[in-house]
Amino acid sequence: MTYCLAISTDNGLVFCSDSRTHAGPDMLSSHSKMHVFSPTNDRVFVLLAAGNLATTQAIVNRLTQDLDEPDSQSLSTCEKMIEAVQYVAQICRNEVDQAVTTTADSGIDATVTLIFGGQIGGTKPAIYQLYAAGNFISESDQTPYLQIGESKYGKPILDRMIKRETSLEDAARCAIVSMDSTIRSNATVGPPIEVLVYEKDSFSTDHYIKLEEDDSYLYEIKHGWNAALHKAFSGLPRFHWEKRSSVNVHPISDNKSSPD
Amino acid sequence: MTYCLAISTDNGLVFCSDSRTHAGPDMLSSHSKMHVFSPTNDRVFVLLAAGNLATTQAIVNRLTQDLDEPDSQSLSTCEKMIEAVQYVAQICRNEVDQAVTTTADSGIDATVTLIFGGQIGGTKPAIYQLYAAGNFISESDQTPYLQIGESKYGKPILDRMIKRETSLEDAARCAIVSMDSTIRSNATVGPPIEVLVYEKDSFSTDHYIKLEEDDSYLYEIKHGWNAALHKAFSGLPRFHWEKRSSVNVHPISDNKSSPD
Repeated sequence: MTYCLAISTDNGLVFCSDSRTHAGPDMLSSHSKMHVFSPTNDRVFVLLAAGNLATTQAIVNRLTQDLDEPDSQSLSTCEKMIEAVQYVAQICRNEVDQAVTTTADSGIDATVTLIFGGQIGGTKPAIYQLYAAGNFISESDQTPYLQIGESKYGKPILDRMIKRETSLEDAARCAIVSMDSTIRSNATVGPPIEVLVYEKDSFSTDHYIKLEEDDSYLYEIKHGWNAALHKAFSGLPRFHWEKRSSVNVHPISDNKSSPD
Repeated sequence: MTYCLAISTDNGLVFCSDSRTHAGPDMLSSHSKMHVFSPTNDRVFVLLAAGNLATTQAIVNRLTQDLDEPDSQSLSTCEKMIEAVQYVAQICRNEVDQAVTTTADSGIDATVTLIFGGQIGGTKPAIYQLYAAGNFISESDQTPYLQIGESKYGKPILDRMIKRETSLEDAARCAIVSMDSTIRSNATVGPPIEVLVYEKDSFSTDHYIKLEEDDSYLYEIKHGWNAALHKAFSGLPRFHWEKRSSVNVHPISDNKSSPD
């Protein structure tokens, strides 16, 4: 399993991915699921992938090879993000079709789902989620993030925290907490965690970190978060039957009723 | 869908359930999924149910009818919690078998999963999770809670917060936050939320609340929690490239590496 997410804020984009891959519980290994393309100075693209690793690599190989073909459509030639995602979607569809056909008798799931995002000079940053069939969706003002893979454990914190106006770095910290929640709850999602924070109009991929399991920053985030949650509970309103006097005592006798 | 959970702390038990039932997206209604039995003064039992409503009601009816049969095994006659859960498991198995047989041609999923817990005088409180086949598990010191139904969204907060020594009321507030996270993320889980806080050796079901969607206590919990989370983020350590001076600035240049 995999967990990847991307967030689109007013100030840029955040990409975050785990690195655990497995073929059965006894065949665990680590592969980066974050693929960064900066073919020219006026554009940055990031691809996050969940699903079959061979199909993912076939897609990445095709994107890379097209960049070396001067006459081919490629990530260098697209003029808008919508063109770029349509191009990636076509490659995704082709590679998934081919992989599904060649593995038809093996019982293998050769499909992938992708998150693709970035910015092309003169246009706005964008992120998209691509399904195996090559159809895709963008994020929205209501839900300015996208998730692929094991998405449920890490969703509540995004729903509570992420808005367009969230600062780029707070969005990145939220992505790390969302990832940490997922890693705690699902053994098939694991470190290192990769985080790329893309500031709008910077066309730079410098704000990238790779957090290993024993990384001190990841440790501080995890422990800081756990401590903050425990503190948060102490401020929540009391039940009407709780005796201790507190500024938070809150009478709720009006909503008490018999359970029977 | 459904979300129910139970927590076992040093001081007692917490039970929490949503109330949304549906047969397709246009057939939503509300039914309590929390069934409380206090047949004699020395015992309290709570049953939480996820799955087919008719099968659930068949199980509850059987438990209730057995209590009226003086010669039948029942929740009144069990001397230990393990006997009680074995009795409930047998009824669960019988009713699921019968429902699955009679609905075999309809394509309906007639199975249920249950959480059953409580206390019998002179013995310790206990909670169990029962599968449709009638097999069951208990909680443990490492994971002192059980969940049925749509469990993933609400799991991280339990993993971070719940320990044996957590106060009973903090565990109940955590259950409400876990339920609220699930309701936000999944439209098939919905209020009213029922919460029963059972204090060890009290044999009382007085600490029960039913929180409607517009309940003021639920509102305070939700908004208090959201505010606390936002505050929690402000205390998390900064990335090495963040300029603003802060006591939380943390250099992590050692774990930066190129994404390419």
